[in-house]
Amino acid sequence: MEPTSIKEVTRYRGGFAEEVADTLVVEEPLEIRVNNERFSVTMRTPGDDFSLIRGLLLTEGVIASNADIGRMRYCEATDSDIGEENIVNVHVSPGCATERRWQRQLMSGTSCGLCGKEAIEAVSTGVAPLPQGATFPRAVLQTLPDKLRQQQALFSATGGLHAAGIFTASGECLVVCEDIGRHNATDKAIGHGVAEGWLPWGKDEGLALLISGRASFEIVQKALMARIPIVCAVSASSALAADLAEANGQTLIGFLRDKAMTIYAGKERIHD
Amino acid sequence: MEPTSIKEVTRYRGGFAEEVADTLVVEEPLEIRVNNERFSVTMRTPGDDFSLIRGLLLTEGVIASNADIGRMRYCEATDSDIGEENIVNVHVSPGCATERRWQRQLMSGTSCGLCGKEAIEAVSTGVAPLPQGATFPRAVLQTLPDKLRQQQALFSATGGLHAAGIFTASGECLVVCEDIGRHNATDKAIGHGVAEGWLPWGKDEGLALLISGRASFEIVQKALMARIPIVCAVSASSALAADLAEANGQTLIGFLRDKAMTIYAGKERIHD
Repeated sequence: MEPTSIKEVTRYRGGFAEEVADTLVVEEPLEIRVNNERFSVTMRTPGDDFSLIRGLLLTEGVIASNADIGRMRYCEATDSDIGEENIVNVHVSPGCATERRWQRQLMSGTSCGLCGKEAIEAVSTGVAPLPQGATFPRAVLQTLPDKLRQQQALFSATGGLHAAGIFTASGECLVVCEDIGRHNATDKAIGHGVAEGWLPWGKDEGLALLISGRASFEIVQKALMARIPIVCAVSASSALAADLAEANGQTLIGFLRDKAMTIYAGKERIHD
Repeated sequence: MEPTSIKEVTRYRGGFAEEVADTLVVEEPLEIRVNNERFSVTMRTPGDDFSLIRGLLLTEGVIASNADIGRMRYCEATDSDIGEENIVNVHVSPGCATERRWQRQLMSGTSCGLCGKEAIEAVSTGVAPLPQGATFPRAVLQTLPDKLRQQQALFSATGGLHAAGIFTASGECLVVCEDIGRHNATDKAIGHGVAEGWLPWGKDEGLALLISGRASFEIVQKALMARIPIVCAVSASSALAADLAEANGQTLIGFLRDKAMTIYAGKERIHD
């Protein structure tokens, strides 16, 4: 299944209409089964599905590393025409949890005390804070938005996609992934690192995740599970995302631009 | 609970750092209980919670109109300090479904045939296509992005929020709501219309929903449930969103700007 499709549309520019063939980003459901049990259905842009699954399983606390993942394959279609690329079954090690952990913990709270603090506690349960570790040069950070944009091939074609990229402290781009959902793009990028064995990050070197758009609680949570010490967003952060980063010794940066940035948490990790 | 909060941040501009008090958008979990049973937990920006719930219950097919909603109230906190504003119980009429219907239908498919077509069928079950009805002037549509932006008070303060507004064919703004999530902003705006009795839309007059950002499947689905004939987005549409609109006789417009727009479906509803 392709990540884009062509559709005849009517386009007005400067008051004049024309019928053109436009390129649209594809959005299709993906059903993920873990050990043959349904785990989730998510709307995603096809492509990098196995990375999406590896990333999601790590960021939800189901697996600890790629070693926990066995065979992964698309289900055979019962209908010859459709669907064979929208359901994936993945085998995980017997010891793995097979639920979305922090969401379950949040959902299982029974008191009338639900709040952001509880959400932070639900995520932080069983996850150690990030060590201080190596610092990251500010000058390199400020080159990252351009590097991300240069690799957003699908965005250039459709104008309708989010992107997530992971970069080293020397400015090397390890991966860039795109998806209609910002959380999916993040899971795909993390999943690449899981498959290649460099995530969860264990080195004493800087590593930064950069996402297009906003930094929400969920994005910071995913980076924390992948042990990525620095999270950057092109746009703003939410208050809860900043609190979650702070609670776990993570660095969170928003409004990252050519010559500007706002550091919400963990500024000691950034050096001039 | 306030929709924004103040945090001390480090801001770099043009290479110089300053410590400033920044305004961040608040993101907090909201637990919705229907007839005392947990219905969902969503991360939202506090404010307009009852509208969010009215809108969500309508767009998920739980209620048909405001008449199905009885008493709605925040749960009393068991802890005096936190949480009393993050759990709401709502009573609905005995005949109402108490599940998220189209998602349940999608999840309950058992064959290996899951695909966008099934998602469209899951939504379209039990919902009549929109009647052709009155047309909407293109010149009015092109004024809507400015009108939306002028009312985005929280976005102006934080740079981190989505907005959804509903407008008549004469250009009157009926409601604008903001939230960190585009789907929540849409539910809040729809919920206002539900409370005031003008949604679901039954008049033979044009009505348009405008959202900041992208048009996804879920946004079009919500507008369909509220019987809003025209959905506009400032950015792109996904292919599945366009297919869903087309399947139900809805008009879908993207890249709505001062002098430009792309009509993905239902162009017969727009007149010069």
